[in-house]
Amino acid sequence: MNTLKVCILAGDGVGPEITAEAVKVLKSVCNAKNYELQLTEGLIGGCAVDAEGIPLSPATVEKCRAAGAVLLGAVGGPQYDSLPSNLRPEAGLLAIRTKLGLFANLRPTKVFPILKEVSPLKNKIIENGMDILVVRELTGGIYFGEKGVTEIDGEPSAYDVMMYSEYEVERIAKVAFEAACKRRHKVTCVDKANVLESSKLWRRVVDRVAADYPNVELCYMYVDNAAMQLMRNPSQFDVLLTENMFGDILSDEASMLAGSIGILPSASTGHGTLGLYEPIHGSAPDIAGKGIANPLATILSVAMMLRYSFHLENEALSIEQAVEDSLFFGRTPDLADTAYPAKTTAEIGSFIAERV
Amino acid sequence: MNTLKVCILAGDGVGPEITAEAVKVLKSVCNAKNYELQLTEGLIGGCAVDAEGIPLSPATVEKCRAAGAVLLGAVGGPQYDSLPSNLRPEAGLLAIRTKLGLFANLRPTKVFPILKEVSPLKNKIIENGMDILVVRELTGGIYFGEKGVTEIDGEPSAYDVMMYSEYEVERIAKVAFEAACKRRHKVTCVDKANVLESSKLWRRVVDRVAADYPNVELCYMYVDNAAMQLMRNPSQFDVLLTENMFGDILSDEASMLAGSIGILPSASTGHGTLGLYEPIHGSAPDIAGKGIANPLATILSVAMMLRYSFHLENEALSIEQAVEDSLFFGRTPDLADTAYPAKTTAEIGSFIAERV
Ligand SMILES: CC(C)[C@H](C(=O)O)[C@@H](O)C(=O)O
Ligand SMILES: CC(C)[C@H](C(=O)O)[C@@H](O)C(=O)O
Repeated sequence: MNTLKVCILAGDGVGPEITAEAVKVLKSVCNAKNYELQLTEGLIGGCAVDAEGIPLSPATVEKCRAAGAVLLGAVGGPQYDSLPSNLRPEAGLLAIRTKLGLFANLRPTKVFPILKEVSPLKNKIIENGMDILVVRELTGGIYFGEKGVTEIDGEPSAYDVMMYSEYEVERIAKVAFEAACKRRHKVTCVDKANVLESSKLWRRVVDRVAADYPNVELCYMYVDNAAMQLMRNPSQFDVLLTENMFGDILSDEASMLAGSIGILPSASTGHGTLGLYEPIHGSAPDIAGKGIANPLATILSVAMMLRYSFHLENEALSIEQAVEDSLFFGRTPDLADTAYPAKTTAEIGSFIAERV
Repeated sequence: MNTLKVCILAGDGVGPEITAEAVKVLKSVCNAKNYELQLTEGLIGGCAVDAEGIPLSPATVEKCRAAGAVLLGAVGGPQYDSLPSNLRPEAGLLAIRTKLGLFANLRPTKVFPILKEVSPLKNKIIENGMDILVVRELTGGIYFGEKGVTEIDGEPSAYDVMMYSEYEVERIAKVAFEAACKRRHKVTCVDKANVLESSKLWRRVVDRVAADYPNVELCYMYVDNAAMQLMRNPSQFDVLLTENMFGDILSDEASMLAGSIGILPSASTGHGTLGLYEPIHGSAPDIAGKGIANPLATILSVAMMLRYSFHLENEALSIEQAVEDSLFFGRTPDLADTAYPAKTTAEIGSFIAERV
């Protein structure tokens, strides 16, 4: 019998509501298939600061390590904005990524046909189809390089170092090429090689990795151009490979093309099968507790979890199908459309749980 | 009598064609108003590498300094891509910005009503209006910080330092607030203060500058969110203030909203009135010499030149009006639409020159 050990980090804001629905769906899948589900819970972000004084305690890290996969809601809230950097909820998020060695962030973006009207792009652009997988390096670059304040000629200054080693680039490039092999065989590596030394290192290493994948087409694009091309002609992209900060910016831009960030999941993986799965949206404190948060991104994150950490492709597909079906049944306000009835977070979660 | 001293740096690719049309328009304005126009020419980019061995010679810098304003076409081409960084055409562009102290890059983006169909965004989003001025810091940050290759634990690595001093942030922030005073009184400062030390310094300084502008509303936005918001609801922005690399990415994204980068001008200014004016698009070597390059961005750059370097607001407005009129007369292929006849670069330039 399959045993699924999952650690739930609900986090702040809408985190508890949306993970609750995702857990409903996960339980339902396990019931149907007679898999044993072992759930644990841990604190991260603002709620961890409140309870334990720090945004990520060693105890939480241990719980994650003991699990086969981690499901995260979201972290952050205005009451924590004035804390020093190392105590802010985001610090917990950045720390869990490095502690678990999750260097590869996978963010698939596609437009569900029924949501065409919700995308900000003209229908004629989306009609060409859009199905992009952003592969973002997650534990290196300017996020984790040396940073600090200093004086230059008596002038107070601050700096952040964007640094990459060949090893870091190689392992994430492999993830991108492997993914492309299962998709449309195209990798677009996005950088700023006309300005940055680190981008030049990226190109050298990515060229080398590409040599092992003769069936995958590789092209390079400057990040400024990529920001335009995503809007002009998103169907040209298959796998978009990029460093941490460019990935942060471009994956959010790409996600908007899908109509709402409320529907986009993500997976963060490392060398083993342990992965962290989370919606790409934030904790949305303004709508927390109202029952109107969109649970679809978190539920789709569960599908990614089943696929990548537990190798349960069929179960993943059944969740994805049920999510698509749910768009006809009803929608949260972010996707509202007079043609489809408004439903609560819990109603949508239950609908999907019943159908998987 | 007004004397306008302008140095033309035509550059590479479509640069010569589009600056030729812009000069036509400039001459026509000066003729009509009886201003004396003194033109000089200099080399920059690939053509400078070919002729002088470097992408920006001291002679060219001298010509620019002797002028009241510089009009630049574009630089770059595939034949230069394999040169070492310091000899690449882009190095000339980065060097002229620093040599002339042009720390403020102004990139206005608006949607001409007649071009609504060309914008990738749904009409209902653009209908709210969109008129954004991106104020991008141009001579600091990761573009000009220390960079190089090194070894970390025996692993070849490369790095780029994003560095800002309070002074650098203060002077660009003032430019943004001054601009906002003449517009809709709103500044959105875009950064990644939840991760970067340099962004935190930006916030401290921008807060301080804002205190001198009680009539201007200031808000902060993370760069990943800004990349989404530009698409979701561009009309929320008035002046968008940001550092060099974020500005590079976001201004290109914003420009796409307007339908084509072929129509967007930019101004780079410093402490005095000397400024450098250029289209935001590149040298487009693939269409060079075919007479199909869009001259509108360069012609609109001349309008910005008249406004900022020569304080000729009425003349600037008359060019802008003629450009808008030209969209009914005919368009280059990037804006093609069956309803409007296709015209060549030169035909459009002449049409505008005759009307100003
Ligand atoms: C909260 C923030 C630090 C984080 C990031 O920039 O990585 C978020 O934007 C994300 O993309 O997961
Ligand atoms: C060519 C390149 C170095 C340049 C930049 O990044 O500044 C260009 O993209 C621009 O925006 O003017």
